[in-house]
Amino acid sequence: MGQDQSSVFDLAAVAAASNGGNNDPLLPPARFIGSPQKPSRMPYNKYASYSEQIPFDYPERTWPGKRLQRAPRWCSVDLRDGNQALVNPMDSERKLRFWNLLVSMGFKEIEVGFPSASETDFDFIRMLIERELIPDDVTIVVLTQCREHLIHRTYEALRGAKRAIVHFYNSVSVLQREVVFRKSKDEIKQLATDAAKLCKRLESDAKGIDLYYEYSPESFTGTEPEYAVEVCNAVIDVIKPTPERPMIINLPATVEMTTPNVFADEVEYVSTHLQDRDSVVLSLHPHNDEGMGVAATELGILAGADRIEGCLLGNGERTGNVDLVTLGLNMLTQGIDPQIDYSNVPEIRRTVEYCNQIKISERHPYAGNFVFTAFSGSHQDAIKKGLEARQVAADRAGADLDNFVWLVPYLPIDPKDIGRTYEAIIRVNSQSGKGGMAYLLKTNHNLDLPKRLQIEFDKIVQKYADETKKEVKDEDIWRLFKDEYLPVEESGVTAAGAVVGDVRDESLEQWGRLKLLKVSVSSGEDGSDTVIKVRMLDRGADPARAGEPQVRELSGIGNGPIAAFLNAVSNLGINASVMDYVEHTMSVGTDAMAASYVECQIGDDPETQIIWGVGIDSSIITSSLKAIISAINRSER
Amino acid sequence: MGQDQSSVFDLAAVAAASNGGNNDPLLPPARFIGSPQKPSRMPYNKYASYSEQIPFDYPERTWPGKRLQRAPRWCSVDLRDGNQALVNPMDSERKLRFWNLLVSMGFKEIEVGFPSASETDFDFIRMLIERELIPDDVTIVVLTQCREHLIHRTYEALRGAKRAIVHFYNSVSVLQREVVFRKSKDEIKQLATDAAKLCKRLESDAKGIDLYYEYSPESFTGTEPEYAVEVCNAVIDVIKPTPERPMIINLPATVEMTTPNVFADEVEYVSTHLQDRDSVVLSLHPHNDEGMGVAATELGILAGADRIEGCLLGNGERTGNVDLVTLGLNMLTQGIDPQIDYSNVPEIRRTVEYCNQIKISERHPYAGNFVFTAFSGSHQDAIKKGLEARQVAADRAGADLDNFVWLVPYLPIDPKDIGRTYEAIIRVNSQSGKGGMAYLLKTNHNLDLPKRLQIEFDKIVQKYADETKKEVKDEDIWRLFKDEYLPVEESGVTAAGAVVGDVRDESLEQWGRLKLLKVSVSSGEDGSDTVIKVRMLDRGADPARAGEPQVRELSGIGNGPIAAFLNAVSNLGINASVMDYVEHTMSVGTDAMAASYVECQIGDDPETQIIWGVGIDSSIITSSLKAIISAINRSER
Repeated sequence: MGQDQSSVFDLAAVAAASNGGNNDPLLPPARFIGSPQKPSRMPYNKYASYSEQIPFDYPERTWPGKRLQRAPRWCSVDLRDGNQALVNPMDSERKLRFWNLLVSMGFKEIEVGFPSASETDFDFIRMLIERELIPDDVTIVVLTQCREHLIHRTYEALRGAKRAIVHFYNSVSVLQREVVFRKSKDEIKQLATDAAKLCKRLESDAKGIDLYYEYSPESFTGTEPEYAVEVCNAVIDVIKPTPERPMIINLPATVEMTTPNVFADEVEYVSTHLQDRDSVVLSLHPHNDEGMGVAATELGILAGADRIEGCLLGNGERTGNVDLVTLGLNMLTQGIDPQIDYSNVPEIRRTVEYCNQIKISERHPYAGNFVFTAFSGSHQDAIKKGLEARQVAADRAGADLDNFVWLVPYLPIDPKDIGRTYEAIIRVNSQSGKGGMAYLLKTNHNLDLPKRLQIEFDKIVQKYADETKKEVKDEDIWRLFKDEYLPVEESGVTAAGAVVGDVRDESLEQWGRLKLLKVSVSSGEDGSDTVIKVRMLDRGADPARAGEPQVRELSGIGNGPIAAFLNAVSNLGINASVMDYVEHTMSVGTDAMAASYVECQIGDDPETQIIWGVGIDSSIITSSLKAIISAINRSER
Repeated sequence: MGQDQSSVFDLAAVAAASNGGNNDPLLPPARFIGSPQKPSRMPYNKYASYSEQIPFDYPERTWPGKRLQRAPRWCSVDLRDGNQALVNPMDSERKLRFWNLLVSMGFKEIEVGFPSASETDFDFIRMLIERELIPDDVTIVVLTQCREHLIHRTYEALRGAKRAIVHFYNSVSVLQREVVFRKSKDEIKQLATDAAKLCKRLESDAKGIDLYYEYSPESFTGTEPEYAVEVCNAVIDVIKPTPERPMIINLPATVEMTTPNVFADEVEYVSTHLQDRDSVVLSLHPHNDEGMGVAATELGILAGADRIEGCLLGNGERTGNVDLVTLGLNMLTQGIDPQIDYSNVPEIRRTVEYCNQIKISERHPYAGNFVFTAFSGSHQDAIKKGLEARQVAADRAGADLDNFVWLVPYLPIDPKDIGRTYEAIIRVNSQSGKGGMAYLLKTNHNLDLPKRLQIEFDKIVQKYADETKKEVKDEDIWRLFKDEYLPVEESGVTAAGAVVGDVRDESLEQWGRLKLLKVSVSSGEDGSDTVIKVRMLDRGADPARAGEPQVRELSGIGNGPIAAFLNAVSNLGINASVMDYVEHTMSVGTDAMAASYVECQIGDDPETQIIWGVGIDSSIITSSLKAIISAINRSER
């Protein structure tokens, strides 16, 4: 080729040098507030845009108005493209474990290796065949370059297999034609057709194998789409597929080079210009260099692709192959059966991480540790309300909640559908609002705090979070809540760690002035003349001057036990009234506990002395009296 | 609202229940080889597709034919949205370190917190202002809900700031309107306009601050685009921005819910239907739930967005905010100045990982450990050839290589441009071909192996890799190469660890039969009668029967030193001829070493005895004789 005239470097260098930065006078003025951004020192004049490298437009495109309709044919290349990109490629134990995972998930096409290039791959394929580990409905794919001795060796590896796809490829990109192969377009095309002919000719080596072909114009994204079609059609001419015996044309986005709308245009162009289209399975093999591999794949499916090659959780060369887990679960969220079983993502992740010896990110879609976690208070509040509303709607529809339509703010998928739990959803840090704390108390401790109590307690949680600068775990919230609202336990150690038991004063001091010892209530037929008698331990109003705790016997009268109790404690000089009162059972059954929440005004200053108390007891009377004591004790602390 | 008739749950449940799996009879038949995929047990009937939830089409779209032209306005939300999603939110030391990084990189808009909701945020903003840490050309953004006391508190946090953007939001999605707010469309719109009015009214609290507004219709992706426009226009009506004092309308993809072509349609619809468009900065705030956040952002820019909110390396709620590093460097690869300094990605990564206390993935675009690593042999070979071709092209153009156009197969960006090195590019494992090994020997040891020698040595490397199942490090390759081709060192320890020095037999045995001790060459004027005299140590042809090594004095004659030396060793019964010979200097200067490679036929059996030898010496004569000895010794091992 006339390299001096048409070197890709010369053309690209001219294009790159003419980049205008952001100062192109043809662009409308940039809109912003404040000062403009400044030119950086990044060498943008060193890069030619994709459209300068591969000029292409396809105004006939129809894909932008389409929507996903069904799962494509999936092919896992974990054992080949994924494996070759590992620092430590899998040994046969790991390969077999990965294979078993893929088969159990429902993959019907699995690329198993490059047997002519790697002894490990060769041996692994022999093991699969000889130990009869390939189910009848699974087709293995083997990769090979198109050289005679490599194809011989490939067929040797396949001996005894029932069905196989021989996948041959050559790079056809503008850049590789010049710098790697130093060949013209026609010569590169001939490499592909010679290879196809060689494969056909050597079929006699593969007697008894139901044999199919896959051809990849490698580095497709660096190739003129018109030329890629020309090469593929020439290969199709040699292989002569039929609708009954199709062949695969696989377009590798070997390197992701630009936005996925351009890739989708290219895929639609190829899909509509391939000959014998109904005898071809059009496949994509996307990588993720620009972080858009998943999008390029989904737009490519809209553009006409039938089949997708990728790896579980996005392993593969450099930034990885496209992630099949994300693709499959994206389908699920659109109401499409992915036809692969992703119901146990934690197990998939464990196996993949074990086999690849690479960890995925905490924020990896669907599989990362944090992807179902909401720290934001408003998010937490919305999730809580959404889960409740869904329960109500399911009840109204008489539907089983597990199968009822999933619509929950901030959670695009039901964690349970992929083997995860709600546990990690709500987590609390110093940036969280009250919603998360309230959710955790409800979910884990069956306490459904009234809104104003949430606001009151949230200040305590936020203060703790701001001071510790750490995530506030459920156990922290529970400890803070108990310390603040509930009596110290009768013996042993409080959650806060203070020893009680043999009545150490510190612990009583922590809890506060009053402790209920005994209560009896009697009332007439309508409760309006309820009489209460209580025995309480009283440390006195001023702990600093207090002597030994005294046992008090008090009685009071009112139109119910609460009023009567307030009347009784007025004998101690405590002037309390109840502003709000909520009580709920904490579980089902005769031994259920009740939780009571009272908002009390204590003393005469309404500004500062409106305060909540909480009581828990198997008796609804005792729980409500404990709640009032909780409020009184808090007000005196 | 008439919840009983129109609950989102009822509508979605009907839509989801009617999902046809992959068996929709309207679809053309699926093309595949082998057995069909089977239905999975994933509950696809539990999910309503996005188009059923938000029916919308925009055939007027123009974005699919557009290409990226310039960097948008960037706004980092690391200190707010990113920070709130951390298990351990940043303390002020970490926040300040992150702030300094953002300022140094060139960000002109930085969202610094939610001061009315978090004391830490409030204190941090006060510190920025009071310690005068905000450069004049940087504008801070503060988030607030639209409630009077929160806005008061927000303005309190801003006191003394020169310029600020107050960012208010409310959720407007179909789902949140029903399950969180239980309000009608008009009521939700009024929440937004009331908030805007409140902000305007309270401006008197913000005297001296050059104040701008940003409004977010939160959960935009779950909202009818027509309604989102209606709400935004109502807010614009209240704020009354002008081209000189614009406001920001920010569209949060709070949850990524479908393919990015749909999002781009929505963005283009909003961009073309907003009133006072020339007074509005249209902003996007994408998340990454379906793994397509980067793509959604880039297509959204094509669709008309002016400004992007995101986080460095994609931190943020659940799967993260969109990654600004990937976006910026994607721009660079298209010849566009990102207007942000990404020239030291390793330092950015260190700071971000320290502040967030979360590690990124090994395969994270641009920043991950493996993203410039090629394990595949054909990739390595292409990279090697590409780097060489680029050098040649730069030399021909008389250009400085560092600034010359970047076109290298499999590497979309020059690692050096973002502060990374070539070191990690070529790594060798059992799946690699000869290219990687050859590259490492050339780069690190200045040895440029001829192709057939590469093939020969590659078998040794592959055998080692298959046996150890580990990555083959550069030092392993060098040790294998020395053990195979070079003499054991004169004293001390060979690379393989065998002690030599005082002529321990093991080491000689390892090296082989012959060792050159001394050489002298004389020739006439044209070299055709070159005479050589050599002194060599000879352990004999059969080491098992060998006695003490003998010193041999040999002479030979030929048309050059090589021929003369072959003639000399024929006296030992060694019948060797040279098939190919390559020599190159290993460095520049008078003390440079020369490397010689000879392909010899030893003995009479051409099938098995074609073998390479390598010699290194400061004398080109000695290096070539050593290479022949290397071949002879190898043939006798």
